[in-house]
Amino acid sequence: MKTVKDLKWHKGIDVEELVDAFGGTGFQSIELNGASDIFVKMKKSNAKIFLAFTSNMVTSGLRGFFAQLINLGMADIIITTAGSIEEDIMKALGEKFEIASFFSDDVKLHERGENRIGNLVIRNESYMRFEDKMKGMLQQIYEKQKRISVSELIKEIGLMLDDNDSILHQAARKNVPIFCPAITDGAIGFHLFMFQQDHKDFIVDVVQDFSNAIFCTTHDEKKGLIALGGSISKHHAVLIGMMNGGFDYAVYMTTAHQTSGSMSGATTQEAKSWGKIKDDSDAATVIGDVTVMFPLAMMRALEKLTAQGIIKG
Amino acid sequence: MKTVKDLKWHKGIDVEELVDAFGGTGFQSIELNGASDIFVKMKKSNAKIFLAFTSNMVTSGLRGFFAQLINLGMADIIITTAGSIEEDIMKALGEKFEIASFFSDDVKLHERGENRIGNLVIRNESYMRFEDKMKGMLQQIYEKQKRISVSELIKEIGLMLDDNDSILHQAARKNVPIFCPAITDGAIGFHLFMFQQDHKDFIVDVVQDFSNAIFCTTHDEKKGLIALGGSISKHHAVLIGMMNGGFDYAVYMTTAHQTSGSMSGATTQEAKSWGKIKDDSDAATVIGDVTVMFPLAMMRALEKLTAQGIIKG
Amino acid sequence: MKTVKDLKWHKGIDVEELVDAFGGTGFQSIELNGASDIFVKMKKSNAKIFLAFTSNMVTSGLRGFFAQLINLGMADIIITTAGSIEEDIMKALGEKFEIASFFSDDVKLHERGENRIGNLVIRNESYMRFEDKMKGMLQQIYEKQKRISVSELIKEIGLMLDDNDSILHQAARKNVPIFCPAITDGAIGFHLFMFQQDHKDFIVDVVQDFSNAIFCTTHDEKKGLIALGGSISKHHAVLIGMMNGGFDYAVYMTTAHQTSGSMSGATTQEAKSWGKIKDDSDAATVIGDVTVMFPLAMMRALEKLTAQGIIKG
Amino acid sequence: MKTVKDLKWHKGIDVEELVDAFGGTGFQSIELNGASDIFVKMKKSNAKIFLAFTSNMVTSGLRGFFAQLINLGMADIIITTAGSIEEDIMKALGEKFEIASFFSDDVKLHERGENRIGNLVIRNESYMRFEDKMKGMLQQIYEKQKRISVSELIKEIGLMLDDNDSILHQAARKNVPIFCPAITDGAIGFHLFMFQQDHKDFIVDVVQDFSNAIFCTTHDEKKGLIALGGSISKHHAVLIGMMNGGFDYAVYMTTAHQTSGSMSGATTQEAKSWGKIKDDSDAATVIGDVTVMFPLAMMRALEKLTAQGIIKG
Repeated sequence: MKTVKDLKWHKGIDVEELVDAFGGTGFQSIELNGASDIFVKMKKSNAKIFLAFTSNMVTSGLRGFFAQLINLGMADIIITTAGSIEEDIMKALGEKFEIASFFSDDVKLHERGENRIGNLVIRNESYMRFEDKMKGMLQQIYEKQKRISVSELIKEIGLMLDDNDSILHQAARKNVPIFCPAITDGAIGFHLFMFQQDHKDFIVDVVQDFSNAIFCTTHDEKKGLIALGGSISKHHAVLIGMMNGGFDYAVYMTTAHQTSGSMSGATTQEAKSWGKIKDDSDAATVIGDVTVMFPLAMMRALEKLTAQGIIKG
Repeated sequence: MKTVKDLKWHKGIDVEELVDAFGGTGFQSIELNGASDIFVKMKKSNAKIFLAFTSNMVTSGLRGFFAQLINLGMADIIITTAGSIEEDIMKALGEKFEIASFFSDDVKLHERGENRIGNLVIRNESYMRFEDKMKGMLQQIYEKQKRISVSELIKEIGLMLDDNDSILHQAARKNVPIFCPAITDGAIGFHLFMFQQDHKDFIVDVVQDFSNAIFCTTHDEKKGLIALGGSISKHHAVLIGMMNGGFDYAVYMTTAHQTSGSMSGATTQEAKSWGKIKDDSDAATVIGDVTVMFPLAMMRALEKLTAQGIIKG
Repeated sequence: MKTVKDLKWHKGIDVEELVDAFGGTGFQSIELNGASDIFVKMKKSNAKIFLAFTSNMVTSGLRGFFAQLINLGMADIIITTAGSIEEDIMKALGEKFEIASFFSDDVKLHERGENRIGNLVIRNESYMRFEDKMKGMLQQIYEKQKRISVSELIKEIGLMLDDNDSILHQAARKNVPIFCPAITDGAIGFHLFMFQQDHKDFIVDVVQDFSNAIFCTTHDEKKGLIALGGSISKHHAVLIGMMNGGFDYAVYMTTAHQTSGSMSGATTQEAKSWGKIKDDSDAATVIGDVTVMFPLAMMRALEKLTAQGIIKG
Repeated sequence: MKTVKDLKWHKGIDVEELVDAFGGTGFQSIELNGASDIFVKMKKSNAKIFLAFTSNMVTSGLRGFFAQLINLGMADIIITTAGSIEEDIMKALGEKFEIASFFSDDVKLHERGENRIGNLVIRNESYMRFEDKMKGMLQQIYEKQKRISVSELIKEIGLMLDDNDSILHQAARKNVPIFCPAITDGAIGFHLFMFQQDHKDFIVDVVQDFSNAIFCTTHDEKKGLIALGGSISKHHAVLIGMMNGGFDYAVYMTTAHQTSGSMSGATTQEAKSWGKIKDDSDAATVIGDVTVMFPLAMMRALEKLTAQGIIKG
């Protein structure tokens, strides 16, 4: 029987030691420690790792960490929303997002052309820069291919970016597909629409991308899921997994609770009723802000995997 | 200055009286009362009303209430996710969803072919029934139109259903467009994919639907938003509004908080920085489970609007 | 098997009908409907009803509703915090609490002598009025009794108040004890301290009150618990129940979740491990703001109980 | 203007580096970084540091960390609830708390005499061991002093314990007062009552302890507040601070939100309207599970303070 241990600080304590200690601390620290163990297991078992996240995480500095994880081989399939695509491109173009406050004066921000996401801000200029770049990129892609699935479109964009901290760039480089089931839900939708106005035969094929998604893995392969936040990125990931026999490993990290019946708050337990994750899977649901919880759990896993020679740190 | 009033029960108290009293009670009851006032104002000002919701609300009994609201003229544009489309169709076919518990044994449910969403359950049979129906409907739609936008597709389906409690049916009947920016994110995605396998020229045009969405209203029109829950339904609605100069009225109802920077928890205040809602708009954010909060706020509004002869009860 | 029913509005719908319909709606509306049923059962079985609440509910208009419930025989034992005692007295003296906003400018409020609790405000004047009254009341109580338990002290105060909407007054009138395990945690603590400075033999005996609490019911009696919010009011109520064999009926209403291991978020399920509520008890945990959830669930119960002649409406 | 930075892992990353990086990550990671800065500032300014926490944190492994903080001079005044006192004593007697699951079978736990707090469990034996010890300790204390304030009582107990990881022991050793405004709200209440049955002149003087609390600091002293979780421990701390002119530094860490008007969710912003914290104070509200958030923020502060020679690591 595992028991609670008194947590202690010592000078120079590193992340691995602290998250190790969380295994005996209590409440969400224990769940976080368990999630970290599952990250290690899914990699060691050679599972295909699905990483699903919402766009606010790309607004945040997790964006560079996600790119690093792709590079390290810790993410084989990405599922996200349109905002993630846009903001990763903006950052790859050198745009900086600013740190503001949850209690900003939003009317003043509006006057200054600053768009708030929690305690962060994206300036209108970043959207304009993105628009300029998109026009050129769409023209180039169209010249190669007139009917294109979403993940192919995103890969083409990724190849045109030149930034090692870019999710799109690293994914394209590593042949990691990025699925985005609602590609038009953002400024990018507007740019696609404008382009299609002048190029009626330009088709973004979402139905074709569904088959890309369900055939990106198989029933036989071991599969692991890391679902950060909720929304359709989480839902689409579990859907793909379910259609391939369910996940063997799953970690959900979210601030939402199951009590309203939302997908955002759905637990790994609930997922078993659907066959989204296997009955005997290793699964953990961690409640908390992903910007804190995920780096802790994943960085400890990276330390363990490096020590075992499984990934190169 | 408004002051707190002692709340009292009397025999036979009706919903309108109770929600009136909430205006002097405190905390979320006051916000709910304010949301109800905004519902009244948006209708009285002839605003175009956007109703955005997530699929778990269609799993719940709110589905019939949404259909009723469309019928009463309280929703001019619908934005939702793929699950809503599927489940509305299942229910229109006579399928019943069961009431279970948040603490169900999910492995047992899985064995019985019961898929849990919070304290509700959808049986595998309902998905099979839906599959059978979809095949026939897609064939009929394809014969009319090979390249179709999402909202047109949904309207065609709505016209084929025969259920007054169906959102799709009432919307089709009333010419209320239903936008679904991630139409493939569900079982329906699989059926569309299967159909496209045999009909390569069948195209679901999401980019075309983006233009349908942004041209469904104008800068000049007054616009009101009712965003229930989070996810891309909420995001897509605010995006359309922003591209048309922002909403004049807005009510967000959600269990999510702004502290994680997610769209689900984004407040009407934050929306002002983007121009998603106007600086001087009437806006309220109500925190709580939509299955309770929304009927209360909206039913009181319906009573007021009926009494004033604006809608017919 | 119970199934989900489409929710519908009709003109003049009353609270009882709506909460009846919630039984087939889904998510928290179902839990709320279940809580309402338990309120009916606990009264019909003649259970001794414990009502525990935090002071913010007395800041709100629920204060008058609690007083009404005591008068109707729906609360036999009250457990609360010091703020409730203070604010009930202020209101009994005619003080009005104001309605502000969650986004008030707190520095300006401070300058104006307005103290914010969520979207409500208590002015400094109300605290001064309370102070004046307390001095006189403590003197009178001291003259009768120098060593006094907390619940006796509160009863003496209740008898001196003249307001039918006062919790303390109705409780005193009806011989309903009010337990307040942290009586000094508020302005009242300061007034008791000032009084004791001049009357060293004045003793507020909290240990004696513990025995009053545990002997206010028995193992043999049926016992029902209504715990609104968290904190020590909830904890003290379950402690008393546990020491008397556990509750037969229990409803928890709270916005807190069990995931942090706090008492506020502890569920009725967890309570069974302690014997705080019986293994086979009728129990429900409802997640949501008490100012909305509680009136709905309780008013429906009052309608049912009145119809059955069990209480007089 | 501060901007978002891409977060990166490197082999051997330590806690200080990670929490430094959080300052540019986003959402709660930024707030956590800010809280850590405030911890450094309050110590460097020689502020009197109030540490308030709820009992579930003593159930967890934070208990040893709190004891360490007292020893390091990072906590000058403690405010907590009765459960903390009990459980610190149990652990000092060698009792081990077990790690279970949030989804335990609570009826089975009850049969086994295991009492659940989130994903932790306290066995009945630990309560029995505590009872035996309390009897002896109360007798010894009574022989010294018949009328005793709560903080004096707790100090006497602390002196009798022999465990460096004990909060009570370290506090007694370091002359750090522990205030517990609801001392009877727990098993300890029962033991005090039993003892008083046989010793009618034994008085636990809570009113006297209120004066100990308000005179433990002054208007002139700089004051810092660390309020972990909600409940009366948080409230009592802010009350004491307010009566001494308000805090200069304040960090709230909680999973609760301000939207229900509860003390648990009250923000540092709201506290300014009361003068609980000063208008120009350095303040941060961090949302998240304290078992993760607090060690991160505090351990980074300890590294900074050690490097500057202000505390000895």
